[in-house]
Amino acid sequence: MLVKSQVKYIQSLGHKKFRDQEGVFVAEGPKGVQELLKAGNMRPVHVYALAEWLGEEQPAIRSLPPSSITTLRQEELERISSLTTPNQVLVVFTKPEFPTFDFGNSLSLLLDGIQDPGNLGTILRIADWFGIRQVACSTDCADVFNAKTVQSTMGSICRVGVMYGDLPALVARYPGLPVFGATLEGRSVYEMERPGKGMIVIGNESKGIRPELLAAIRVPVTIPRIGSAESLNAAVATGIILSHLVG
Amino acid sequence: MLVKSQVKYIQSLGHKKFRDQEGVFVAEGPKGVQELLKAGNMRPVHVYALAEWLGEEQPAIRSLPPSSITTLRQEELERISSLTTPNQVLVVFTKPEFPTFDFGNSLSLLLDGIQDPGNLGTILRIADWFGIRQVACSTDCADVFNAKTVQSTMGSICRVGVMYGDLPALVARYPGLPVFGATLEGRSVYEMERPGKGMIVIGNESKGIRPELLAAIRVPVTIPRIGSAESLNAAVATGIILSHLVG
Repeated sequence: MLVKSQVKYIQSLGHKKFRDQEGVFVAEGPKGVQELLKAGNMRPVHVYALAEWLGEEQPAIRSLPPSSITTLRQEELERISSLTTPNQVLVVFTKPEFPTFDFGNSLSLLLDGIQDPGNLGTILRIADWFGIRQVACSTDCADVFNAKTVQSTMGSICRVGVMYGDLPALVARYPGLPVFGATLEGRSVYEMERPGKGMIVIGNESKGIRPELLAAIRVPVTIPRIGSAESLNAAVATGIILSHLVG
Repeated sequence: MLVKSQVKYIQSLGHKKFRDQEGVFVAEGPKGVQELLKAGNMRPVHVYALAEWLGEEQPAIRSLPPSSITTLRQEELERISSLTTPNQVLVVFTKPEFPTFDFGNSLSLLLDGIQDPGNLGTILRIADWFGIRQVACSTDCADVFNAKTVQSTMGSICRVGVMYGDLPALVARYPGLPVFGATLEGRSVYEMERPGKGMIVIGNESKGIRPELLAAIRVPVTIPRIGSAESLNAAVATGIILSHLVG
């Protein structure tokens, strides 16, 4: 049974401030939760689930004390869920731990002003598909532990390390490294060699990469437009660029 | 001033059945509306807008009779808008007209079970970017004139012709044509020649291309996975595949 203080606590985790204070975040739905339980770099703190979900074999939560598992009725799950269609299980996890970031020796993604939580999650899932393990976000990007972002990563949040900071300063720390940037006027991404290491910068969909960061781009790249659409969604552009630069 | 019958009429256009009966659809927001007003293959039937928007130079609606333009207050716009943040203008347009479809001599996109309206709109915008003018949808795809789809196309709806029908039957009508299909086990999309003409089939994100249509695919293609994400969003996969096959 769900008690009032639990409802309040989970609702408070809808705010970044409380997530940061507590060092935890919320994941929902059997598929995503299953991936995170298997991940090994984050710990389930409390599991809220329908009897139906708990009745299935869930080896990953076998070692949890009974006090960390709450069986819910559907109406109770609806009270704590942030999804329009709550789905069987909600878990409070500790934030994942990642090895120290090393931008100098691999390909990484730099996100400038990606404010839509769903878009950010989709981009992390794309990064994970292409084996990119490090993403640096400008401080005005959406929070990676926002429920919508966690949901859109489809479990990739446990495999892609995300940090927030001053992107022009980050770029400046690696003077010899190729820094690609998605722009409307650059070299065709179809003509690039796959670089092996470097930074790939994606900007805000309507404003592009902000001027301070744009000045630090060493290789502006473009997805040639054949038709007439005004722009591409930032996640779609990320997918296309990675498919031509990674591997 | 907005009258009750107008509110009811616009709300009824939220349903496909009424849109089909009336042969019209609703577009919202200055950017998208502007693109559609310029398009030439659809006619504005009624413009509902804030005085602010009407005060700007709007040559495309100059020829409309005054009875086809309603000036609204913000609260009134909120009553008829389907957006969370209503944006200055809502226009009822006649459905666009496109030249007759010709699948045999160009590249076209076939969408199988794309049920999310936002995803469908994003895919049409990608098609427009890559100069694809013809999209055939299975009958269980979202409706292209759904408000969310129209919104996500960002104006591309006026440039990309969409038809609905039996996709295996459509493929069967073009026996010699290359038919590419996005699958998890096919030839790497990186190793393909750009074909110039043919059909590119994209399936439902979680279920893939349905068996009847899969059997008709002549060239299964795959986006090689380097990392660990379980799948790619259908729109992202479309963008990547088109960037390797079109041009």
